[in-house]
Amino acid sequence: MDKRRLLVILEYDGTDFEGFQIQKTGRTVQGELEKALLRITGSAVRVIGAGRTDTGVHALGQAAHFDTAWDRSFSVLQHALNAVLPRDIAVRSIREVALDFSARYDAVSRAYRYTILNRPIRSPLACRYSLLVSETLDVDSMNKAAQELQGSHDFGAFGKPPHGVLTVRELLQARVGRTEDYILIDLEANAFLYRMVRRIVGTLLEVGKGALTLEEFREVLARKRAAAPPVPPQGLCLLAVKYE
Amino acid sequence: MDKRRLLVILEYDGTDFEGFQIQKTGRTVQGELEKALLRITGSAVRVIGAGRTDTGVHALGQAAHFDTAWDRSFSVLQHALNAVLPRDIAVRSIREVALDFSARYDAVSRAYRYTILNRPIRSPLACRYSLLVSETLDVDSMNKAAQELQGSHDFGAFGKPPHGVLTVRELLQARVGRTEDYILIDLEANAFLYRMVRRIVGTLLEVGKGALTLEEFREVLARKRAAAPPVPPQGLCLLAVKYE
Repeated sequence: MDKRRLLVILEYDGTDFEGFQIQKTGRTVQGELEKALLRITGSAVRVIGAGRTDTGVHALGQAAHFDTAWDRSFSVLQHALNAVLPRDIAVRSIREVALDFSARYDAVSRAYRYTILNRPIRSPLACRYSLLVSETLDVDSMNKAAQELQGSHDFGAFGKPPHGVLTVRELLQARVGRTEDYILIDLEANAFLYRMVRRIVGTLLEVGKGALTLEEFREVLARKRAAAPPVPPQGLCLLAVKYE
Repeated sequence: MDKRRLLVILEYDGTDFEGFQIQKTGRTVQGELEKALLRITGSAVRVIGAGRTDTGVHALGQAAHFDTAWDRSFSVLQHALNAVLPRDIAVRSIREVALDFSARYDAVSRAYRYTILNRPIRSPLACRYSLLVSETLDVDSMNKAAQELQGSHDFGAFGKPPHGVLTVRELLQARVGRTEDYILIDLEANAFLYRMVRRIVGTLLEVGKGALTLEEFREVLARKRAAAPPVPPQGLCLLAVKYE
């Protein structure tokens, strides 16, 4: 049987995973998906993700590819995988791609959302998917600072590259907005450095609290001033990976 | 020190509770709140809830009252309680009420929301707070059927009374609407029978699937035809308890 390459879109609740990428120990999204693929297709399958997500980070639209000799419909494969995958992972879609397609290298951009619950009292119903910030936040200033990040910049101030040494990335969209008690920070880039989203959010929070001026925020980007430490993972969600 | 009566508004994630009301065994919201009150005020306190919620049912605005000799500010008490309560319960507000006020008997209405995720594939990020229904649903018909319930009716078809024998209740609001993949069923009544919301939702789902006509739905209310069994608890949330 000929091999085919399939692209899957995954949703997962990151709470009980030690990130996406398989490791020697610890429960990972890749590990659970490879186990499910072995169980359903009968063959050992190596899954290549569009990118890693850290421990505790969620995904609505992570992408990954793998090769398989599966010769029945993708819909049957998808339903079978969703039947054996644990409750905190689901395959949202499957489609066939060219044999030289790479979920990682062909990705044009990644879109992340960080969710802040901005109210005085913690929320049992929201705490799994947001960060509580009780102080008043100046969302307009946060949004203005976020605009400074748009375009191609050396983002070395906000993180280290997962591979190699290049720290220039292109930020395609940056937006901070409020919906009732929630502040949503949306960032889309061709690629991100390690912990980059969470350190940007931490630094934007300093701006929102009035601890950092817009000018000082620019100095952080220019590496003349330290960025804030990364905010916790549970507010972060990989919304989508985009391809041509 | 004089006793004062306080009304608290509670939010909780019902997943890991065996309902609101204290029992001989099992973790309950009332039990955890009474433990926290003993720890903070130093006195054993009996909490009276506006109503019970079943195992697994959530609340954004459950109400309860208790008497205490606490003589410092309510804000201090609220923060102290939220510091010792487990992560899945929070006190959203505290206010003083008259000594003859009852969270249960003075409640004018209770508002519940049931959340259905209506898409083909299950959702790891939504499954904790919704019921997945994969079939296409006719939301207009569900909403029309829900309108039939408004007003004072004998709701005995949908549940048993928690106390006594009276099964007449006044449904003040009933609405079924769609927002993207979510179908929200909002029901507000002076009071509800045991499992009434979940059996109404189950029966409305039969209408949405085309298994029950509007005329047949009316026959259910008239007790000429059986209601559907209750839907699972995780989609249900007590939004608010209202007082004069």
